[in-house]
Amino acid sequence: MKILGIDPGYAIVGFGILEAQRGQARLVRCGAINTPAGVPMPRRLVQIQEDLETLIHTFSPDVMAIEELFFNTNVTTAIGVAQARGVILMTAAKLGVEVFEYTPSQVKQAVVGYGKAEKHQVMEMTRRLLGLAAVPKPDDAADAVAIALCHARSHTSRLRRL
Amino acid sequence: MKILGIDPGYAIVGFGILEAQRGQARLVRCGAINTPAGVPMPRRLVQIQEDLETLIHTFSPDVMAIEELFFNTNVTTAIGVAQARGVILMTAAKLGVEVFEYTPSQVKQAVVGYGKAEKHQVMEMTRRLLGLAAVPKPDDAADAVAIALCHARSHTSRLRRL
Repeated sequence: MKILGIDPGYAIVGFGILEAQRGQARLVRCGAINTPAGVPMPRRLVQIQEDLETLIHTFSPDVMAIEELFFNTNVTTAIGVAQARGVILMTAAKLGVEVFEYTPSQVKQAVVGYGKAEKHQVMEMTRRLLGLAAVPKPDDAADAVAIALCHARSHTSRLRRL
Repeated sequence: MKILGIDPGYAIVGFGILEAQRGQARLVRCGAINTPAGVPMPRRLVQIQEDLETLIHTFSPDVMAIEELFFNTNVTTAIGVAQARGVILMTAAKLGVEVFEYTPSQVKQAVVGYGKAEKHQVMEMTRRLLGLAAVPKPDDAADAVAIALCHARSHTSRLRRL
C-alpha cells in the first residue's frame, strides 16, 4: 500500500510518500510544494492543486493521510491553511485517492506510542522506524512523513484487530 | 461586464450572476449548489468544484465577487467554509476568472449606502436596484446577488473616480 502523507499549508505543503507492507514502511519520496508570497491566493491555490495532481499521477498513492485542522491563535493563517486543505481534499477525492484524517495526538501515539510526545521524539522515531540517516527536511516534509507513518501503523493495528 | 457573486459554504454555495452596464445591473440567474450531508467532505468539495466549473462554463462571468471570511463562534463550521472557499477561489483562478473580495460592511455600504445596515435592508435594496418582484431565494442566493451588486456598484464608482 502506498501512502501519501500531507502537512497542509498555503505557503508550504509538506508531502511524504511511504510504501507499507506487513507492518514495514519504506520512504519513497518526500518534499514540499512551495507557493510564492506576493502571488494572489487564488493563484497559489491553483499551484497547490496542479502540483498535487502531478504528485498523485507520478506516485499513484492508494490513500492520503492528513492531519485534522485545529485553530491556532493566528486566524488569518488558519483561514489560509483551511482553504489550501480544501483544495488538497478535493484533489485527492477527484483522483480517487481515499482520505484519512488523524489528530496530532493520534500521530504521536502511532509513531512514538505516547499521545503527548514532544515533536523531536516524533521526528526521531520517524527517522528510526524508516531507517533513515537523518530526519527529512524541511520540517513540513518530516511532519508529512510522520502522518503517513501514523496511517501505516494505525492501518496495520486495525488489520491485526480484525 | 458579467459578475458572479458567491456566498461560500460547504453545504450550500449561493450564487448570483449579474450583467452590469453603465451603472445599471440586471439579474441573469441565481441559485445554490447544495451538497448532501453524510457524504464525506472530500466528495462534497469535488461536487462544489464541478458544479462551479459548469456554472462558469455556462455563463462565462468576467469576474467573481466573494465575501471575505470572518470567524464566527462555530470553529468546525468555519473550517468547513474556509475549505470550500479555497476550492471556489482555485476554480475561479484556474478558469481565468479574476476574484474580488469584499467585507460585509463594504457590501452594506455599496448596496444600502450605510456600512452598518441591517440584513433585511440589504435584501430590500438588492431587490429594488435589480427591479425584482421579490427577494431571491434561498438566502444564500440573495446574499450572493448582493455581493455581485456590491462589485457592480464599487466598480462603477472606482471607474468614476478615475
